[in-house]
Amino acid sequence: MNDLKTCIEENKHLINKHLDEYLEIRYPDIIWESMRYTVLLDGKRLRPLLVLETVKACGGKIENAIPTACAIEMLHAQSLIHDDLPCMDNDDLRRGKLTNHKVFGEAIATLAGDALLSFAPQVIIQKTPTAVKNEIILKILEEFLITAGALSLIGGQVVDIQSENKKIDKETLNYIHSHKTGDLIRFSTRAGAIFAEAPENIVKVFDEFGRLIGYAFQIADDILDIISSADELGKTTGKDEKSQKSTYPKLYGLENSITEVKNLCKQAKNVLINNNIATPVLIQLTENIMIKSEKDKK
Amino acid sequence: MNDLKTCIEENKHLINKHLDEYLEIRYPDIIWESMRYTVLLDGKRLRPLLVLETVKACGGKIENAIPTACAIEMLHAQSLIHDDLPCMDNDDLRRGKLTNHKVFGEAIATLAGDALLSFAPQVIIQKTPTAVKNEIILKILEEFLITAGALSLIGGQVVDIQSENKKIDKETLNYIHSHKTGDLIRFSTRAGAIFAEAPENIVKVFDEFGRLIGYAFQIADDILDIISSADELGKTTGKDEKSQKSTYPKLYGLENSITEVKNLCKQAKNVLINNNIATPVLIQLTENIMIKSEKDKK
Repeated sequence: MNDLKTCIEENKHLINKHLDEYLEIRYPDIIWESMRYTVLLDGKRLRPLLVLETVKACGGKIENAIPTACAIEMLHAQSLIHDDLPCMDNDDLRRGKLTNHKVFGEAIATLAGDALLSFAPQVIIQKTPTAVKNEIILKILEEFLITAGALSLIGGQVVDIQSENKKIDKETLNYIHSHKTGDLIRFSTRAGAIFAEAPENIVKVFDEFGRLIGYAFQIADDILDIISSADELGKTTGKDEKSQKSTYPKLYGLENSITEVKNLCKQAKNVLINNNIATPVLIQLTENIMIKSEKDKK
Repeated sequence: MNDLKTCIEENKHLINKHLDEYLEIRYPDIIWESMRYTVLLDGKRLRPLLVLETVKACGGKIENAIPTACAIEMLHAQSLIHDDLPCMDNDDLRRGKLTNHKVFGEAIATLAGDALLSFAPQVIIQKTPTAVKNEIILKILEEFLITAGALSLIGGQVVDIQSENKKIDKETLNYIHSHKTGDLIRFSTRAGAIFAEAPENIVKVFDEFGRLIGYAFQIADDILDIISSADELGKTTGKDEKSQKSTYPKLYGLENSITEVKNLCKQAKNVLINNNIATPVLIQLTENIMIKSEKDKK
């Protein structure tokens, strides 16, 4: 797995450098500090990596997609800041650090999330190289905004909140997973293909690949929530159980969940291989999700 | 003032019809209901009116600007929803009705604001007639997102929050006013001129006009907060005093504030008249702000 590790580290360095640059502190400092705090928390930068690796797989130029890759990471951070608020999941820890509102207070944390929501697409407009056609930028912006909104990320979060302490069916769980976390991963691979100006059928392949690993990733995350300690995970664990959240392992059991992750990852790999667009990094990334979900067996 | 009244009513009808259409209820219903609740509260639709009247003044087609006029109203509603939250201004009433979180709870209200922040620019992309050039849509989107963000609306709100219970100077008050409320009014007139493809000097004229009436509007609002009853205003009054907010009337006195509104409105009218782009509606709208601020003298 050395290749993947190196690749993740290089990508992290590249993305963090740009995020740091885009989010330079301006007046009033506190809001930029709060935005930076969560965006720049240590993380794998999985979504930006998926964007840039898909661009490469489709033979495009990664520099065209860097602002969008960073915008996706900012949107991800925004959703974490607001999800952690006392009126939502009320979380104190995130990636091993205090959550945004614990450091900056609820008002600034709410506003920092808002600010990221408009700053992220602004970065796409202002920082994407002028060589990229306006129609591509508009297509990316449209999909980005849909993904951020009530039909997608927020829709998933709403149904998640409404499902607490309730017995939910498979369809509802599927809706929560595919929208709350899946759609942003799916958009990441789509965006890569769109920037590379890949033909429509290839965009669809990456759409499907993103959908499959997004779902696998969420189930693996829920498995980890059960089997890991807070130390390892850097966030409050066992939260799902405590808050009576419905998760895949809870509905189907741990063993079935691990099998499902394996199946999804296998399908995801096959989608790429069957269309001759598999790259070593994308395959290894997918296998990594499988390994993550099997951690408890070691 | 009959002309203006008719014009306001017709504009209100047009904008409400489109807002109602854009915000059709989808799954999960509760989030769309929450978004609709605040967006469709009875209001004058001043900002959309400014967009469309500026388009007319510049000889453009209003249908090109309707989605953006509605997006501005949605952004305005978003800022109200989040400003009213317990962690911010903690308001119970807005336009004579319960605030969003009082009806839908804090979590949904927070998410409804978030959803509006991404839905508004999405409407600009999806609903602007295809006849409008991509570069104009991108310019509008960029300015919209800047106005919504930390350099503008949110920056103003942050400094406003930080200034509570503090003695602030003229520059700080000016920063709060121009960003928290001024910039969206300024963007409304700019957007109208941009959609009409007005030459750069005319866009600048409408930028200045928007800046002047935006400032006048905020001072008039603060005057009203002091002199009106809650019944008349439809929101909690005397809030500024209670929360120790610095306002123009507080720093300069009521008489000076009324004089300042008059001066600003006079300047605003002159900017239009001197450039031969005054329309009866824009002039009457400006005079209306003056009358509003003089209400107490009657």
